[in-house]
Amino acid sequence: MDYQTLLDNVAAEVAPLVGTGTVADYIPALAGVDPMSFGMAIADVDGGVHGVGQWRQAFSVQSISKVFSLAMTLSRDGQTLWKSVGREPSGNPFNSLVQLERENGVPRNPLINAGALVVTDHLVGLAGDASGALLDFLRSETGVHTIAIDQDMAASEAAHGDRNASLAHFMRSYGNLRNPVPTVLEHYFRQCSLAMSCEEVAVAATFLARHGELRDGRRLLTRSEAKQINAVMLTCGTYDAAGDFAYRVGLPAKSGVGGGILAVIPRRCTICVWSPGLDIQGNSVAGAAALDVFTTMTGWSIF
Amino acid sequence: MDYQTLLDNVAAEVAPLVGTGTVADYIPALAGVDPMSFGMAIADVDGGVHGVGQWRQAFSVQSISKVFSLAMTLSRDGQTLWKSVGREPSGNPFNSLVQLERENGVPRNPLINAGALVVTDHLVGLAGDASGALLDFLRSETGVHTIAIDQDMAASEAAHGDRNASLAHFMRSYGNLRNPVPTVLEHYFRQCSLAMSCEEVAVAATFLARHGELRDGRRLLTRSEAKQINAVMLTCGTYDAAGDFAYRVGLPAKSGVGGGILAVIPRRCTICVWSPGLDIQGNSVAGAAALDVFTTMTGWSIF
Amino acid sequence: MDYQTLLDNVAAEVAPLVGTGTVADYIPALAGVDPMSFGMAIADVDGGVHGVGQWRQAFSVQSISKVFSLAMTLSRDGQTLWKSVGREPSGNPFNSLVQLERENGVPRNPLINAGALVVTDHLVGLAGDASGALLDFLRSETGVHTIAIDQDMAASEAAHGDRNASLAHFMRSYGNLRNPVPTVLEHYFRQCSLAMSCEEVAVAATFLARHGELRDGRRLLTRSEAKQINAVMLTCGTYDAAGDFAYRVGLPAKSGVGGGILAVIPRRCTICVWSPGLDIQGNSVAGAAALDVFTTMTGWSIF
Amino acid sequence: MDYQTLLDNVAAEVAPLVGTGTVADYIPALAGVDPMSFGMAIADVDGGVHGVGQWRQAFSVQSISKVFSLAMTLSRDGQTLWKSVGREPSGNPFNSLVQLERENGVPRNPLINAGALVVTDHLVGLAGDASGALLDFLRSETGVHTIAIDQDMAASEAAHGDRNASLAHFMRSYGNLRNPVPTVLEHYFRQCSLAMSCEEVAVAATFLARHGELRDGRRLLTRSEAKQINAVMLTCGTYDAAGDFAYRVGLPAKSGVGGGILAVIPRRCTICVWSPGLDIQGNSVAGAAALDVFTTMTGWSIF
Repeated sequence: MDYQTLLDNVAAEVAPLVGTGTVADYIPALAGVDPMSFGMAIADVDGGVHGVGQWRQAFSVQSISKVFSLAMTLSRDGQTLWKSVGREPSGNPFNSLVQLERENGVPRNPLINAGALVVTDHLVGLAGDASGALLDFLRSETGVHTIAIDQDMAASEAAHGDRNASLAHFMRSYGNLRNPVPTVLEHYFRQCSLAMSCEEVAVAATFLARHGELRDGRRLLTRSEAKQINAVMLTCGTYDAAGDFAYRVGLPAKSGVGGGILAVIPRRCTICVWSPGLDIQGNSVAGAAALDVFTTMTGWSIF
Repeated sequence: MDYQTLLDNVAAEVAPLVGTGTVADYIPALAGVDPMSFGMAIADVDGGVHGVGQWRQAFSVQSISKVFSLAMTLSRDGQTLWKSVGREPSGNPFNSLVQLERENGVPRNPLINAGALVVTDHLVGLAGDASGALLDFLRSETGVHTIAIDQDMAASEAAHGDRNASLAHFMRSYGNLRNPVPTVLEHYFRQCSLAMSCEEVAVAATFLARHGELRDGRRLLTRSEAKQINAVMLTCGTYDAAGDFAYRVGLPAKSGVGGGILAVIPRRCTICVWSPGLDIQGNSVAGAAALDVFTTMTGWSIF
Repeated sequence: MDYQTLLDNVAAEVAPLVGTGTVADYIPALAGVDPMSFGMAIADVDGGVHGVGQWRQAFSVQSISKVFSLAMTLSRDGQTLWKSVGREPSGNPFNSLVQLERENGVPRNPLINAGALVVTDHLVGLAGDASGALLDFLRSETGVHTIAIDQDMAASEAAHGDRNASLAHFMRSYGNLRNPVPTVLEHYFRQCSLAMSCEEVAVAATFLARHGELRDGRRLLTRSEAKQINAVMLTCGTYDAAGDFAYRVGLPAKSGVGGGILAVIPRRCTICVWSPGLDIQGNSVAGAAALDVFTTMTGWSIF
Repeated sequence: MDYQTLLDNVAAEVAPLVGTGTVADYIPALAGVDPMSFGMAIADVDGGVHGVGQWRQAFSVQSISKVFSLAMTLSRDGQTLWKSVGREPSGNPFNSLVQLERENGVPRNPLINAGALVVTDHLVGLAGDASGALLDFLRSETGVHTIAIDQDMAASEAAHGDRNASLAHFMRSYGNLRNPVPTVLEHYFRQCSLAMSCEEVAVAATFLARHGELRDGRRLLTRSEAKQINAVMLTCGTYDAAGDFAYRVGLPAKSGVGGGILAVIPRRCTICVWSPGLDIQGNSVAGAAALDVFTTMTGWSIF
């Protein structure tokens, strides 16, 4: 079966689930999205791109951006980051402070909020304008120069950002944040507010399926670093459902509360699926189901 | 034995302990204090005042101020505060976030940092200039118009205030802080930075031994509210050593990391003792010993 | 007002509350009690005894027994117990394992289940037949030789004792339990299953109001030890409501899920009140209210 | 490079690490092992078996047995087990009670001690003699009828089994253990005390690399169940180092405190490596290094 037929079949199978779940409403800018949206795109390691549904419509990538900022930070300094953030599953709801306190301000992994704040703090140190550098990378790798940060979304995130501000100050009290809290938060809220389509996310992430090589053959990450990100995505990429997700889907993946999920099939392709209705753990209901159907059809689970 | 003789005997007995323990050094303004300082003052319910050592030298009252801001808040609105803060011992080190998370942003009691921030938030709502109102009260009740906030100390607290900022944002994320975090923190750091002598603290707190009556006979608190504050001091006033303190000293008390301790003997007197060396829980070594000796000599433990 | 009039007035005032709350039903033997029961007894320091309602009817003392086993253990060895158990409020529901893990198997205080198991373990070491020694003491001090352990209750406790077995094994894994778990549990369940009336409990506890002296003038505890027990009762005696209880009632007290509460007014009297309906924290609704009314009427709060 | 050459090269490369780390000594029976031991075996999906070092010497499999009892339980009843145990990483040291309390007695996953006790409880329900059934399976699949349970080890485990007894009683207090605690513990300690060689472990686990098919072609598990076990091993198989292990080695694996590690390369082979020196998280130092070198040499990480 070719990719396009696969995508069509997957979309048909999960259609009944589109619209189920709950659209994130903690900020008004997210709550306004049409719950019936569904899109899915595949970018294969040879440059082919395929899609179904609203695969070219921009949505709020939210936590999916954590994968890209992690890659950019590792690409600029692969050594020091891991002193400030761990690589272990968090085993608790995604913004819990308990473990952070237990472990003296060092977050368990770079894909929970606390860990992503540490990554952003490092990227601010390395690049200055962290969210600008991220935007440049995404535009360059996709060739789409209209990718942008949704300013209303970023303002809305900041206005409802007390939990993240609390995390940032907490880590700073342990000396595990080097830049001023407002600076780190600004770049963090901006990166979460990136608006991208399934196509753009899948294409921009191709380096994860190509073991660190960008689409033009230049190397962003070492082979080892690319595998590390995949491993972290598998064990920590879907909030408190990572184990269950590994069990059902069997692919490294990162979800966002905007309803997007990015998944990686090493050596084959990246997949981005989007549908705004979330399950209780914050993962897209139809999106997770689509990946489940996809790996069942293809047998491409990594297990 | 009269009060003066008692104080002289207590001071003689604890003299070997003065200078032991560790002076708080988390902010430079605290670290500079002479570790050999010791002072103790008693203000009896009839207006008599007695002292020994450096009982007229100002020190940083720090957390002792929490008792005064709690009293002022209750005096202006005795009803609504207890919806935002509990009255239970915290059972964990004094600025732990764990319990705060467990209990959805409602601090266990008004004498831990999180609870005191809630009290300050309420007082800002009731009085506008919360720290100014507190200063007015303390000047008025003592008749000492030179009592002041140490501005260097307040600036130093703010510069090292990430943990408190984290607590404040955390509670605000649960909707349990109504004013902007920077406003609440400003007044909180200012109240902690009050510089007062043992004499002034003991005199200003007399209403706690007089079941709510100020020194001129006007009523600040109801009988019941005054007893409530004493009860909260006994169970929560000395950080994670409240049980041990009740066991040894047997008096309602509130300590501060500046080395001061305020204790109340209902219907008799208030006592303020000061010596900067702290034990591992943050309570003055010589101060706690002085209160222990005092209750042993007098038999005035409440138990 | 004399004691009898006081008791009559208190009983009249709390009558509407009798029957409210929930009777403990975790074991069948407790669930069968008449929810409309109410009794209250006072034993003054001079030997007088007064009562109202069903003050002479036996009920299951449950956790109130912890006070007596603590006193007996301290009286036989006042030194070593405090190495195995703390004196701090627990700040969590009464049989939580979290704090026990945090503190390496040393319970926060002797009045939570874990701490009481440690006390029983010590008493087994000191007396052999711990529950037998306890029974002997209670019979001797009250002069009532029919006080007994309810064997059905003890069997029922053992059959539903997994949580306590878990606590005991947990502490033993840290080396903080010296006798075999089944032995400690047997004596623990037996002491909880003591059936006593309000009169018998109040009389047996008189030594707490007499600073350690038994009714015949012999000394069970030092003055200091007796005060220590009162302090621990005040800060830890009513489960997770100790702060609130101190605030409302202002007396050292210990409650049991059988609906009894023992309270101490130092130098005056002991009070035992019983009514089976419990509030959400496990304290008798009518019993707590009766003590509240009593201290309001008399002004005998310790604060 | 053929398997034998690979194994020889790996053994040479990790030789300097053999003897480093700490041999488990919580029970005497484990502490007596020669720290200089090292063995490694590969069983490929086509039936080939290869080894190096002491690959035919029996060691205590300890927690590796959890994988086999999980497989046997799923093979007999794939539906009900997941109601009693989760599939999420634990995010805390391996026998922590905190999360168990938070989640009402349902362990996070079947590879931590609490979860394995639940699995054993189910297997007792399904097979009666759970450890006997496990032994039968291992003998049958390997063709080695001398595989046995080390009775001294099992007795030693029982004598030091308070932590596991605490976990079992705790879960039973939530109704999440159906058989009597002593029965479950007996089978649990027996399965941990299995003595097997690297060769036997690798051969017995081949079904995990064959998506559920036994060596003779019969099916033990569905394709989906076999993948589920691999996913759980990847996210939860190496105590609190699962994330780091996924990152370094990139294979589903389960370690034991006897120094063994079982790893799976889906569709290719199973590997068992053994060396008793453990790192701080309880995983074999030389064993983990050997797997790391192996995946680097072959590129067979799943990421």
